[in-house]
Amino acid sequence: MPATVRVAAAQIAPVMLDRDATIDKVCDVIREAGRAGAELVAFPESIVPGYPYWAMFLEPVSINALNRRLFHNAVAVPSPASDRLCAACREAGVYSVVGINEREGGTLFNSQLFIGPNGEIFGRRRKLMPTSHERMVWGRGDGADLALFETPIGRLGGLICYEHSNPLYRYAIQAQGEEIHVACWPGGLPGINGIIDAATRHYAFEAQCFVISVTAVLTEAAIAAMGEGGKLATLQPGGGHSAILGPRGDYLAGPETGGEAILYADLDFNRIVDMKMVVDSAGHYARPDVVELVVHGGRRRPLTIERGARG
Amino acid sequence: MPATVRVAAAQIAPVMLDRDATIDKVCDVIREAGRAGAELVAFPESIVPGYPYWAMFLEPVSINALNRRLFHNAVAVPSPASDRLCAACREAGVYSVVGINEREGGTLFNSQLFIGPNGEIFGRRRKLMPTSHERMVWGRGDGADLALFETPIGRLGGLICYEHSNPLYRYAIQAQGEEIHVACWPGGLPGINGIIDAATRHYAFEAQCFVISVTAVLTEAAIAAMGEGGKLATLQPGGGHSAILGPRGDYLAGPETGGEAILYADLDFNRIVDMKMVVDSAGHYARPDVVELVVHGGRRRPLTIERGARG
Amino acid sequence: MPATVRVAAAQIAPVMLDRDATIDKVCDVIREAGRAGAELVAFPESIVPGYPYWAMFLEPVSINALNRRLFHNAVAVPSPASDRLCAACREAGVYSVVGINEREGGTLFNSQLFIGPNGEIFGRRRKLMPTSHERMVWGRGDGADLALFETPIGRLGGLICYEHSNPLYRYAIQAQGEEIHVACWPGGLPGINGIIDAATRHYAFEAQCFVISVTAVLTEAAIAAMGEGGKLATLQPGGGHSAILGPRGDYLAGPETGGEAILYADLDFNRIVDMKMVVDSAGHYARPDVVELVVHGGRRRPLTIERGARG
Amino acid sequence: MPATVRVAAAQIAPVMLDRDATIDKVCDVIREAGRAGAELVAFPESIVPGYPYWAMFLEPVSINALNRRLFHNAVAVPSPASDRLCAACREAGVYSVVGINEREGGTLFNSQLFIGPNGEIFGRRRKLMPTSHERMVWGRGDGADLALFETPIGRLGGLICYEHSNPLYRYAIQAQGEEIHVACWPGGLPGINGIIDAATRHYAFEAQCFVISVTAVLTEAAIAAMGEGGKLATLQPGGGHSAILGPRGDYLAGPETGGEAILYADLDFNRIVDMKMVVDSAGHYARPDVVELVVHGGRRRPLTIERGARG
Amino acid sequence: MPATVRVAAAQIAPVMLDRDATIDKVCDVIREAGRAGAELVAFPESIVPGYPYWAMFLEPVSINALNRRLFHNAVAVPSPASDRLCAACREAGVYSVVGINEREGGTLFNSQLFIGPNGEIFGRRRKLMPTSHERMVWGRGDGADLALFETPIGRLGGLICYEHSNPLYRYAIQAQGEEIHVACWPGGLPGINGIIDAATRHYAFEAQCFVISVTAVLTEAAIAAMGEGGKLATLQPGGGHSAILGPRGDYLAGPETGGEAILYADLDFNRIVDMKMVVDSAGHYARPDVVELVVHGGRRRPLTIERGARG
Amino acid sequence: MPATVRVAAAQIAPVMLDRDATIDKVCDVIREAGRAGAELVAFPESIVPGYPYWAMFLEPVSINALNRRLFHNAVAVPSPASDRLCAACREAGVYSVVGINEREGGTLFNSQLFIGPNGEIFGRRRKLMPTSHERMVWGRGDGADLALFETPIGRLGGLICYEHSNPLYRYAIQAQGEEIHVACWPGGLPGINGIIDAATRHYAFEAQCFVISVTAVLTEAAIAAMGEGGKLATLQPGGGHSAILGPRGDYLAGPETGGEAILYADLDFNRIVDMKMVVDSAGHYARPDVVELVVHGGRRRPLTIERGARG
Repeated sequence: MPATVRVAAAQIAPVMLDRDATIDKVCDVIREAGRAGAELVAFPESIVPGYPYWAMFLEPVSINALNRRLFHNAVAVPSPASDRLCAACREAGVYSVVGINEREGGTLFNSQLFIGPNGEIFGRRRKLMPTSHERMVWGRGDGADLALFETPIGRLGGLICYEHSNPLYRYAIQAQGEEIHVACWPGGLPGINGIIDAATRHYAFEAQCFVISVTAVLTEAAIAAMGEGGKLATLQPGGGHSAILGPRGDYLAGPETGGEAILYADLDFNRIVDMKMVVDSAGHYARPDVVELVVHGGRRRPLTIERGARG
Repeated sequence: MPATVRVAAAQIAPVMLDRDATIDKVCDVIREAGRAGAELVAFPESIVPGYPYWAMFLEPVSINALNRRLFHNAVAVPSPASDRLCAACREAGVYSVVGINEREGGTLFNSQLFIGPNGEIFGRRRKLMPTSHERMVWGRGDGADLALFETPIGRLGGLICYEHSNPLYRYAIQAQGEEIHVACWPGGLPGINGIIDAATRHYAFEAQCFVISVTAVLTEAAIAAMGEGGKLATLQPGGGHSAILGPRGDYLAGPETGGEAILYADLDFNRIVDMKMVVDSAGHYARPDVVELVVHGGRRRPLTIERGARG
Repeated sequence: MPATVRVAAAQIAPVMLDRDATIDKVCDVIREAGRAGAELVAFPESIVPGYPYWAMFLEPVSINALNRRLFHNAVAVPSPASDRLCAACREAGVYSVVGINEREGGTLFNSQLFIGPNGEIFGRRRKLMPTSHERMVWGRGDGADLALFETPIGRLGGLICYEHSNPLYRYAIQAQGEEIHVACWPGGLPGINGIIDAATRHYAFEAQCFVISVTAVLTEAAIAAMGEGGKLATLQPGGGHSAILGPRGDYLAGPETGGEAILYADLDFNRIVDMKMVVDSAGHYARPDVVELVVHGGRRRPLTIERGARG
Repeated sequence: MPATVRVAAAQIAPVMLDRDATIDKVCDVIREAGRAGAELVAFPESIVPGYPYWAMFLEPVSINALNRRLFHNAVAVPSPASDRLCAACREAGVYSVVGINEREGGTLFNSQLFIGPNGEIFGRRRKLMPTSHERMVWGRGDGADLALFETPIGRLGGLICYEHSNPLYRYAIQAQGEEIHVACWPGGLPGINGIIDAATRHYAFEAQCFVISVTAVLTEAAIAAMGEGGKLATLQPGGGHSAILGPRGDYLAGPETGGEAILYADLDFNRIVDMKMVVDSAGHYARPDVVELVVHGGRRRPLTIERGARG
Repeated sequence: MPATVRVAAAQIAPVMLDRDATIDKVCDVIREAGRAGAELVAFPESIVPGYPYWAMFLEPVSINALNRRLFHNAVAVPSPASDRLCAACREAGVYSVVGINEREGGTLFNSQLFIGPNGEIFGRRRKLMPTSHERMVWGRGDGADLALFETPIGRLGGLICYEHSNPLYRYAIQAQGEEIHVACWPGGLPGINGIIDAATRHYAFEAQCFVISVTAVLTEAAIAAMGEGGKLATLQPGGGHSAILGPRGDYLAGPETGGEAILYADLDFNRIVDMKMVVDSAGHYARPDVVELVVHGGRRRPLTIERGARG
Repeated sequence: MPATVRVAAAQIAPVMLDRDATIDKVCDVIREAGRAGAELVAFPESIVPGYPYWAMFLEPVSINALNRRLFHNAVAVPSPASDRLCAACREAGVYSVVGINEREGGTLFNSQLFIGPNGEIFGRRRKLMPTSHERMVWGRGDGADLALFETPIGRLGGLICYEHSNPLYRYAIQAQGEEIHVACWPGGLPGINGIIDAATRHYAFEAQCFVISVTAVLTEAAIAAMGEGGKLATLQPGGGHSAILGPRGDYLAGPETGGEAILYADLDFNRIVDMKMVVDSAGHYARPDVVELVVHGGRRRPLTIERGARG
């Protein structure tokens, strides 16, 4: 357990539907956060190359062209696009968690990339269950996506947006000993800030850990980039509700609701000790004789090709 | 599923350490709420005969006398004391959930009594795991305490105070189809209101249900009743953060922080439908192929006496 | 294996979003088919109380009211609504397969009910994976939904709409020895008839079985019933492409594309024998040394409550 | 993923039972297709030196002589015969897929050769399971025959004739990410065109890929070449049902049923993206928690000689 | 739970092997204790008509005659002998627990009789397992002998001598809520006082109850009464180690080691409350999820005659 | 069963709240005992780094800072701290049982480490149920903590402090055949010596085994180290009541109440034989037809992560 860790939440807007320009921007922020002394910087959900607002605001029968643009601007892992994120982390010497539209085969996923200061991707988790309209865009993750990552700056976990609504997804990560939780959200969805506030404050409390909660900002430019003849005119620019929270659900930084900004906070790990002594949800406060959670971990594939020793 | 149900949260103070006087007061409120059209009224944690503040604020070696008074003012189930609560419900024609210090054998429990308008106790749940100092006062519940109760006004569940910190306790109840959740809290503990706010709003959201959150009020009289030579002088009267919440975590009534009050709200069950269509945490949003919760239900006893057919 | 079985495909329109009126209509058809000598009659996908076209043609942010109407007109199993379907089968002495919007807890499913001439439900299968916009309406089935049903009129299986696109879902049912396959589809979706034609003909060939393929019809009245201020005006009434096919993929009846109609055909089971001698996909034509399909059968629940012997 | 690829289907007749003359003809077509801008050209099943119709139409006791002729006109790989095909591809700068009667040891196989524009054979797949009468002529392939081939013009896969009847063979190839599928068929078999139509349209749909479906033509000359005293007089010349299909099962070229012809089409790979976003059978539309296909890949030999460290 | 109860331990010697004279003596003590305000008086193990020392100190081959005398001086229940004990209790208005040699059929038992102030026997328990040499004299009890007796002066239980060595026998009684435990011992056995001291102090502590521990005194007269030619000359008169203990294992009266005496103590039941709040072995301090004791209650008979409906 | 074993009880004081200095001291004693010929040396409850007196003597709301210091000075298993204990045992060639504050995740446990002369930890048991104020510091053990350890010097078991109050915990270990029992206690708690005396003497008797009972000493220095502005001034230095007992509950060494000391005794295992012949509580003196104890053994975890074969 480290003593103190400086972390950052990068509340930024994507260069909508432009993977390479967005990665440029993300890499710039990684370097800036590194210069500011941050050891970890977190980015919003699907920031590369942006959240598919159209799936929520347009008729499903008319979203083909936007989906196709998203597909071509998604990030394969590894790929030159992900390599550039890794290089920026190595250069800046920081950990980062970046929300991407990941592509594997013909399916997109809403994923979080965990990259180390050595430039290596040590974690990639996919949203287990996209929410409503998102299911027209993204596939689902599996048991491998409930991993926790042990690092010198603490044990890191992450969840994306409404994954926070499911107690079992949360506990599966928390109970492994999570110390810093990265909660990624989109920006600019109507009415979501109240949920983000309650979800992240309660997460910190129930997990007795720190939470870096980071949303994107929805800009006029992003709305225009989704163009399509003004069909997305009902979208309001704005959004943003990023914050860094302590283990009692208290705000250490933010909530920032005023546009692009990088939030910083120094995490005092002794605060985890104080809370754990009172409520350790996976320790003395658990009742494994009454409730047990079973996680079926590991990746699942519809097709497995086995090759024998002489194959 | 009913269409609309009127419910009430009774934010009151106990007549501290006086079981019978407190029950008088609770019965009065049951009748008042019944006259106001409430079909269900919820009371704070351990309101009969009050929360054991001394266990938190006095040295453990000096709490014998107060513990002994609590022991003698606790409620056995059934007993004349619980019978009076039942009679009030039958008279008023309302459901009620009442927090009591329950006594069985030599052990006290922090329990919620669920009483029907017919005057019958249809549920009794004990806090699964008391928190820190409370462990010097109360025993622990077991798998039987994660039951959900089907009634004509909806499926009712309950949890007490920091039980809300444990995702598995919550999901074990929610996933049975909870529609109205009764969250009981003490009153006047420093710094707890922020947690109550986050916990109840998030509960409503993650369960897609209504929440009746009810705290007690800590009065000068109650502090005086715990007397003991002014040792509890550090306690501040006040407290109170009761509320009734809708399935997006929005406040329908309260939060009331200004002393004794009865809050009312009419619950529109269609709001549950709207949320479930988007996020049904135990339905389409669950991933039983990845995470499964097992509850070991039923009461557990250290001693079982079996009597054979000829015994 | 029976010698000959008379089967029917009921290409009808729902009384849109009106469960009880639609069930009246379905029961009438069951009786009519029974009088015409049919031993089995199949109905379209989600005919009770209709397919949620709005999820495809309206912006997701504006479908709440329609979803709520669907929720209240869905069919719990068992319930008085499903009992009426059972009574009609018993009265008419026929098997039927009926597509319903099934409701369990807070989740809807796209299900097929298999009802016997004794009025008992012997099978209920849920669509394993809703397609695109449907994922905003329906949950997913599981391994229990790949069951095959042995009956005196042959071994019956079923799949719904784009489930036919997945070779593994199909083979999982076929390889158990399917003899009559019921393929349910919605009606009136643009451009789907070509896919229905190819999918059902090929299904019969690859499974060496009979296929009853049945679609609904989309009527002006149904479009009007989804009202909502003319928002669904882009929908065109029409649809329909029901048919009954033999084991080489040849049409025994239909395809019927001209509105409501009941198709009949007499199935000569010796045709299955002829095909199996040449291509038995799960027998002599299989290569289990090279390709093996593993099905994880059985229902999966996110919550399991175990009660001990002394509970 | 390329943007657009021009492909060709060469619907030709063999010079029956004359390997070298048939190879001359095939090489001519390769060059012609190259001149027409095709990047890939596909040939019918067993076009070198023709499909063994006698195994279907003559009494098995009388097919010895024809089998002997076929054996001597089969193609070993590599051999001068296969080298000539390679040279033609290199000269024309095109990919080709050629159906051959392959000979290894004393056994013939029904194989597809995949040759690159560099003149190298990068794939050779044998029909996994010959159909009925074919089992008197050809041996069976193994797990190595379910490989997919990654190339600059897309990921190529192939199946032969009734292999298309088996969902597991198909999925084993599709789920690796197939983009262009080469379906090879014989020509002139009675009643097969309906099956080819359904199978190839459905294949494109279920794999969300392009299909080049190519059949041979049966000529009077070929019937005569099988001579043998008029015994094959029941055979009708004709046949042919080649086509090129898009990922919804739509015809981009063909079906051509009027004799020898080379079909061309330009494949727009964005059409795969459009379909995958809706139905990715091995991605977001798969249910690996329910159905898993295991392929035992690699060649299998009846005799393996292992040598120890000094061997 | 009563507030205070006065109890007595009657450390007396039997009129050895003379049932009626011993009962006279016991009845006198009951009346004396009653006059002294005792509500309960306890007597030593097998005081009527004495402990069979010969079984320990004589060669087993030579104990026939003494056994015969014991048999004829044992107490059947009910019988005129037991009636006299009952009458004394009724007359004095006290509860008493009297150790007897009980006779049923051809077997003797080492029993405790529980008699109420109304003169009724409400309990009779037999030593479950005689110790070593005792097995030559007494039979064994069964599950019925682990009963606890609810009375207005508290819940009464009892065990005899080395029964105290078995944790399960003890817990079976304690866990039913024992408040006053009657521990009966013989007198004059060498080296047993240390065990009595540890066993009774620890019993009070582990049960959080009061203990009345009562031993007999071995007199010269008793030794002489067992006469038989001086064979028992090795026996030393003396013994006695009676006491009354509080729930922390503290002595409220005694230990008395100086001959015949009646000890008195007033039991303050609030002391049980104080201990239970800290250590309730069958309540909050139990772990029924880890250790469960099952008692097979009820009498067991070697012969049961069942009679059918007409029996 | 060995003939004779020399054992030691190390009555020492911790270097309060200083893990590493306390371990230095413990290791010194291990070596000293080894030189004195001891084969087994036992240490007090939670000697590393001391018992949390503050939880009993300070107001719970003010113990945060001390708890935090304890957390950071607790012992993870394995860790460099536990490795040093192991090394000392290997060096000295002795068995040792050491009481530690164990840390796992965010929870502390009151544990006994069993280390062999080969330097390996062969047992680690956690107190099943902390007592009263201790519940604010330590979590609970489970069924795995009732194990008995077979060694060449006899079968070893252990319990901690008030665990000795529960007959079922004791019997669960004794009935496995315990020969040497290690009873660990804190030092300096007021009024506990009488309980230690009764509990250990009776334990030896009821288990028919040897008991090494070892307490710590509370020093002025330790009280000062808990500092906190003199709040713990009510604590009295002193304590100590260690002893080694034989199977009749007789003292072989001690009780030592005069400060730091190492007690030694040579255990003659034939004394166990002598007692077992008279009273074998889990053998001939048991009545399994009447009382049965069921232990649910094994560790229980709130979270289990299963990984499939292909994960």
